[in-house]
Amino acid sequence: MADDLERMWADLAPVGRSAASGGYFRQPFEPAERELAAWFAEQADARGLPVETDAFGNQVAWWGSDDGTGAVLTGSHLDSVLDGGAYDGPLGVVSALAAVDLLRERGLVPRRRIGVAVFVEEEGSRFGQACLGSRLAAGATTWEQACGLRDRAGVALGDVVDGGPSAIGGGGWLGDVAAYVELHVEQGRDLVDRGEAVGVASEIWPHGRWRFDFSGEANHAGTTRMEDRADPMLTYAMTALAANKQARVSGQRATFGRIEVAPNGTNAVPSRVTAWLDARGDTDAAVAELVATIERQAVERAGRDGTAVVVTAESVSASVSFDPSLTRGRPWPVLPTQAGHDAGVLSAAGIPTAMLFVRNPTGVSHSPAEHAEIADCHAGVVALADVLGELAGGLAGGTTA
Amino acid sequence: MADDLERMWADLAPVGRSAASGGYFRQPFEPAERELAAWFAEQADARGLPVETDAFGNQVAWWGSDDGTGAVLTGSHLDSVLDGGAYDGPLGVVSALAAVDLLRERGLVPRRRIGVAVFVEEEGSRFGQACLGSRLAAGATTWEQACGLRDRAGVALGDVVDGGPSAIGGGGWLGDVAAYVELHVEQGRDLVDRGEAVGVASEIWPHGRWRFDFSGEANHAGTTRMEDRADPMLTYAMTALAANKQARVSGQRATFGRIEVAPNGTNAVPSRVTAWLDARGDTDAAVAELVATIERQAVERAGRDGTAVVVTAESVSASVSFDPSLTRGRPWPVLPTQAGHDAGVLSAAGIPTAMLFVRNPTGVSHSPAEHAEIADCHAGVVALADVLGELAGGLAGGTTA
Repeated sequence: MADDLERMWADLAPVGRSAASGGYFRQPFEPAERELAAWFAEQADARGLPVETDAFGNQVAWWGSDDGTGAVLTGSHLDSVLDGGAYDGPLGVVSALAAVDLLRERGLVPRRRIGVAVFVEEEGSRFGQACLGSRLAAGATTWEQACGLRDRAGVALGDVVDGGPSAIGGGGWLGDVAAYVELHVEQGRDLVDRGEAVGVASEIWPHGRWRFDFSGEANHAGTTRMEDRADPMLTYAMTALAANKQARVSGQRATFGRIEVAPNGTNAVPSRVTAWLDARGDTDAAVAELVATIERQAVERAGRDGTAVVVTAESVSASVSFDPSLTRGRPWPVLPTQAGHDAGVLSAAGIPTAMLFVRNPTGVSHSPAEHAEIADCHAGVVALADVLGELAGGLAGGTTA
Repeated sequence: MADDLERMWADLAPVGRSAASGGYFRQPFEPAERELAAWFAEQADARGLPVETDAFGNQVAWWGSDDGTGAVLTGSHLDSVLDGGAYDGPLGVVSALAAVDLLRERGLVPRRRIGVAVFVEEEGSRFGQACLGSRLAAGATTWEQACGLRDRAGVALGDVVDGGPSAIGGGGWLGDVAAYVELHVEQGRDLVDRGEAVGVASEIWPHGRWRFDFSGEANHAGTTRMEDRADPMLTYAMTALAANKQARVSGQRATFGRIEVAPNGTNAVPSRVTAWLDARGDTDAAVAELVATIERQAVERAGRDGTAVVVTAESVSASVSFDPSLTRGRPWPVLPTQAGHDAGVLSAAGIPTAMLFVRNPTGVSHSPAEHAEIADCHAGVVALADVLGELAGGLAGGTTA
């Protein structure tokens, strides 16, 4: 098993990696991400696990047969943020395949069938909607809504995916899933501080994305007097600083990490600045209050700058509590997470769900600096196999695999 | 002549125009700008004016023969900023052709030859160096320096232009130019306020472009505590506000109109923000002080944000005073300008130079809102023809044209 795990990581290491930064670019339906989807199908095939793929491209490899009591699902995603790390997503998929291997080594013949899933566009790095694959599978986003999404180049999702509203098996392939367990690299320092390799999630903070459209008047950067300008860059700049300050004061999180400027010329006062706010907090009310305060300050500043600002919620996810019964009696520390995950979507859809975390020595993620030591990856596989084996039940030492 | 002028504007109106904004996208060596270069050659041909083109693509259409006393040059540029107006550049070229027509109608046979020039990449919107065509022609930028410039897509200028260091006639085609007169749409409200159609420039403010590279640490926008971040967006935002404030306080101009963010993802704290400062002032010392103050504030803030900032001067142009003898005795108001022009490059190269301005009712430029009334365009043509006719000398009522 140890050899297989390291071989899988070696397979994935070069795919979509930037030589300049060392980070990964694995955007949905682009060649690097498609290569990973093909790799997953090969891995499943090598294990004799039949793969089903739904209209959006979500994949699931099945081990065992449906016994009528529902499936146990595990897995994660293979896409990355722009210039992301190696582990966010792939760790859950690789560990799931390795956990199947380990359960087979242990001789398990699962009573319930076990599915290893790969959800598409978990990061929302292409079409702007995080967890899009799991949202479509769970019915939280409709096919029609998804088809209206466009990427940065203006390409509509409906022109990229020639699927359609039909899903695996016709009526929503998540329909018979009795439990979902997702393993993920930790995106903070809790496990490092505690000296533990593995943890379990208690909840996902509520979070969302809001688009701020600042509009002003394009003009010549040299000839236009400062007092004659309507410069939306200034309104944006103050808003970015205000968001940071409000989040610090309230103990929440607020980030402006993406911006588009028009015309984006050195010698032109911009006509438009569009920026995206990522906001998260410990309660739904705290997030709403945080965003409202930032918007209020933006509008006030716009009044002084002679600009305008319009705020649009692009996605808002309420808080999610995971099902403690799935991991009861385990020795792992229990942590909240501020990151959205497919597990959050499945939990919100009513599926009993748990998440396991593996220690990240840098605490950094969405960055080339994200890391997991191979020994901790092994510990994660063992933990995941333990949970899956108990949920799936079955005969140890059976003769079929 | 009136018909020809309006016909030329009708020719140019659709080329490179965005249906969405009404603005123009005429970047050097892109199809729209190349179409305008071909149009200029056709216009010159229709007038029997032979066209020379140098290694970079600068064009000059000659009327009359070299009499040994040097040429009188006029013209401007046909490229635009991103989403620019119709007049910045083309007004000077169209008016120069129309002025030749008018002088011929008046029966002038010029003693000195008159050249109508089109300089490439005046705006610096593609390769980042304003007035690149005139700088190459005047020797202010070397061919080797130019070939090292890259556009936003990373394409090197040397791969776009297959010219070489050779120039028209071998030794710099500007060598025998005795005077240059450029007509331009006004980029402010002075002529509107004075109720005048035409003005003349006294000087160009010193100005330049500085690149600010802010670097920090990419990280997850949800899971990274505010106090654990090194977010270069914050350092940039404070710097943009500081630049605005310093320019207001000192009566100068400072603009951050262009920004690039990496990875530019909604849910990632950026690793890098690159932003370009356009700064201008009434003296060279004032500009240097302005930029130094902004840099100092950026560095201070970077210290608090845990980020770093490096400032690189990409182009700096000293103040230029035009030659008042070229326009002596004219009734036009005299105005300074804060915008760089090819006329400034030629003046700095020692060529006696003048600029005429035509009223812009909006006062706005580098924007689709830039405008000139056709009656004012006519007044500009008459003014330019008067100046060119006097500088070129010659026989009125001659029999050849």
